[in-house]
Amino acid sequence: MRVVVNAAMSVDGKLSSRERTQIEISGPDDFDRVDQLRADSDAVMVGVGTVLADDPSLTIDSDERKQARRDRGDPENPARVVADSRVRTPPDATVLNDAAHTYLLVSQAAPTDFVEQMEEAGATVLATGEDRVNLTTALGKLEGEGVEQLMVEGGGELIFSLFQADLVDELSVFVGPKVIGGRDAPTLADGDGFTEAFPELELQSVERLDAGALLEWNVP
Amino acid sequence: MRVVVNAAMSVDGKLSSRERTQIEISGPDDFDRVDQLRADSDAVMVGVGTVLADDPSLTIDSDERKQARRDRGDPENPARVVADSRVRTPPDATVLNDAAHTYLLVSQAAPTDFVEQMEEAGATVLATGEDRVNLTTALGKLEGEGVEQLMVEGGGELIFSLFQADLVDELSVFVGPKVIGGRDAPTLADGDGFTEAFPELELQSVERLDAGALLEWNVP
Repeated sequence: MRVVVNAAMSVDGKLSSRERTQIEISGPDDFDRVDQLRADSDAVMVGVGTVLADDPSLTIDSDERKQARRDRGDPENPARVVADSRVRTPPDATVLNDAAHTYLLVSQAAPTDFVEQMEEAGATVLATGEDRVNLTTALGKLEGEGVEQLMVEGGGELIFSLFQADLVDELSVFVGPKVIGGRDAPTLADGDGFTEAFPELELQSVERLDAGALLEWNVP
Repeated sequence: MRVVVNAAMSVDGKLSSRERTQIEISGPDDFDRVDQLRADSDAVMVGVGTVLADDPSLTIDSDERKQARRDRGDPENPARVVADSRVRTPPDATVLNDAAHTYLLVSQAAPTDFVEQMEEAGATVLATGEDRVNLTTALGKLEGEGVEQLMVEGGGELIFSLFQADLVDELSVFVGPKVIGGRDAPTLADGDGFTEAFPELELQSVERLDAGALLEWNVP
């Protein structure tokens, strides 16, 4: 499986302000690039924090790209994946709608009534790990479901966990022209952070895009 | 006065890990660029947090650049400026040595014995603001002392305060190839952060440098 992380951050590495409201960081060219990346992926993953903060649909915007997927026998939209160790996905979350199939990654400690509620909403629940999702096992299960390219759209807690588990293959970062600031604002990679053995990436490309820059990194 | 902020951050916007130890983020070409920027500046400023964490000298490395400054009648090294609202600069800090003149920015609440101790160490103490340095007034005083270009080398608390006071003219950011992560790790701009009216910068240039990328932003 290929894991491609994509994010838009401010000049100073923030995904949002300390209030965690959605802030427009990128522009139309980056939106279009992200839409293509979604269309090229079998599934799009977020952490539950992103579901709670933004209630995203994670679907493809372009009709042409949806048609191209149908033409090659794929579903119109990639599957959606929510990493939700603490079973916080609301039953009315947009990611649970009919626009695409949804996988919910939970731990083996997830209560039966939550699992049933999510399954009633049409999601496939994958339980791994004792009291926290084991991302390595969970991504293995997704691969078993046919996910060859998994796009990850954040947030910073999930992105850090994926780096920590050495599961990331590529990282695309759009750096937008805003300064957000804030020692409590969410960043591209949060979690506990590394204190040694920092992952070392290889800069594949750097270019201007919209009013900012796109940095594409490989994880060797 | 021209205020030029320079920093090296990880892929994910961190200046250091949560342990605040110094981490090598940039490489020889960026070090050389920073040395030139120091040589082109009348003073180099840091927050006291950086003094406590890294004990930097803030002096020029290259003998040629020091000679060029002497040749044009300037001191070998630019002056050093420490923003220290809470009077935490230790009397044996390297920034207080004889390699350059040092200004200490404190508030009017700074205790007399601290001020005397710093003056004995050779520093010029500039008091502004009731219980916290008023950066606008303090930078005005520095301009009165002949500082036309002020380079700022961090940390994130000072950089945020300067953006908040609308004092920054340029921001150069080297983005290095490491992932540091950590919700408590220091970032390029910390403080309380903005929640609206985010400063909007203009991307002046973007290029590969060492194993990362250099982004140069103007503040309109």
